[in-house]
Amino acid sequence: MASTLDELIEALRCLPGVGPKSAQRMAYHLLQRDRKGAVRLQRSIDEAITRLKPCSRCNNFSEHEVCDRCASPTRDPSQLCILEMPADLAVMEQSHAYKGLYYVLMGRISPLDGIGPRELRLDKLLERATDGLVEEVILATNFTNEGEATAHYVGEMLRARGLRVSRIARGVPVGGELEHTDIGTLAQALLERRGL
Amino acid sequence: MASTLDELIEALRCLPGVGPKSAQRMAYHLLQRDRKGAVRLQRSIDEAITRLKPCSRCNNFSEHEVCDRCASPTRDPSQLCILEMPADLAVMEQSHAYKGLYYVLMGRISPLDGIGPRELRLDKLLERATDGLVEEVILATNFTNEGEATAHYVGEMLRARGLRVSRIARGVPVGGELEHTDIGTLAQALLERRGL
Repeated sequence: MASTLDELIEALRCLPGVGPKSAQRMAYHLLQRDRKGAVRLQRSIDEAITRLKPCSRCNNFSEHEVCDRCASPTRDPSQLCILEMPADLAVMEQSHAYKGLYYVLMGRISPLDGIGPRELRLDKLLERATDGLVEEVILATNFTNEGEATAHYVGEMLRARGLRVSRIARGVPVGGELEHTDIGTLAQALLERRGL
Repeated sequence: MASTLDELIEALRCLPGVGPKSAQRMAYHLLQRDRKGAVRLQRSIDEAITRLKPCSRCNNFSEHEVCDRCASPTRDPSQLCILEMPADLAVMEQSHAYKGLYYVLMGRISPLDGIGPRELRLDKLLERATDGLVEEVILATNFTNEGEATAHYVGEMLRARGLRVSRIARGVPVGGELEHTDIGTLAQALLERRGL
């Protein structure tokens, strides 16, 4: 086998979840069955790494210094919603329930993976949240152990700066049936019941 | 989300076994955690699609018209071993048991995937095997249903041209214990027993 091929297989292994066997399969597929796809992939990686940088305000990937959403005059600058990943932002926007601004952590506190407050660059969030316009911070990290730990840490950090901090609600999903809801969720839903 | 990012996610889906979710995870990983890996991947795809073409003799990926192995004067040109994929050639070479030449099909006959003799370009193999030097063709496709069907088809095709055709042996693996050998293999090993 040519070394150019070995190098491609090795390079494909930088993708998450790709071991030696699937890297090999991917390389053969690109070379043998989908050269058009390979050219497209090569170009879009080039475009993306050249053009996408973190937005200086929300930390999400952006083609500009400040992304369109952060620059928009129609969003409410007094609310800042904190999310783990860009995909979370996408679903949040799809809900049409929020008109404030966002901050994307690009991860979560995860001691097992060596990701603490410093690796998450929470200093950038702190600077963003204390711009004088933000009044309320809404923590919308996942309800996993790591997401909860992240929400707790970030919440404490920002409350200490005098900001109002809230957490999105947890409970039985809309349309969900009690019978098919896991008991942990049900227990929390009972515990966090709201007065009517 | 920026369209450059969407395009990268979409492009990653050309890789086999990569759905929308893992394409998204891969894109974030490349942009957020491994820009060096992304640059390397982009370059090696570029190198590979530019430099690797099928060898005109063995059909394996090669940086030259005729690959080093096919051009080597130390290999026996009277034997031609037929394999499904480059990875099969690699293990065959590691066995140090074969000094002839190879032909790599780059696939197998698989009607369910729409791959027949024409898609496998068996005309190229036919031309290669009838160069006047090849005396014996050794079928070393996998012992899967598709590999067996491919061996059968290719074997018939080449025997009709007056070539000696053989199939690598099937049986209990070296070091294998009968107790832990699957019954299908065991039945074949018994059926194909050799006189001592």
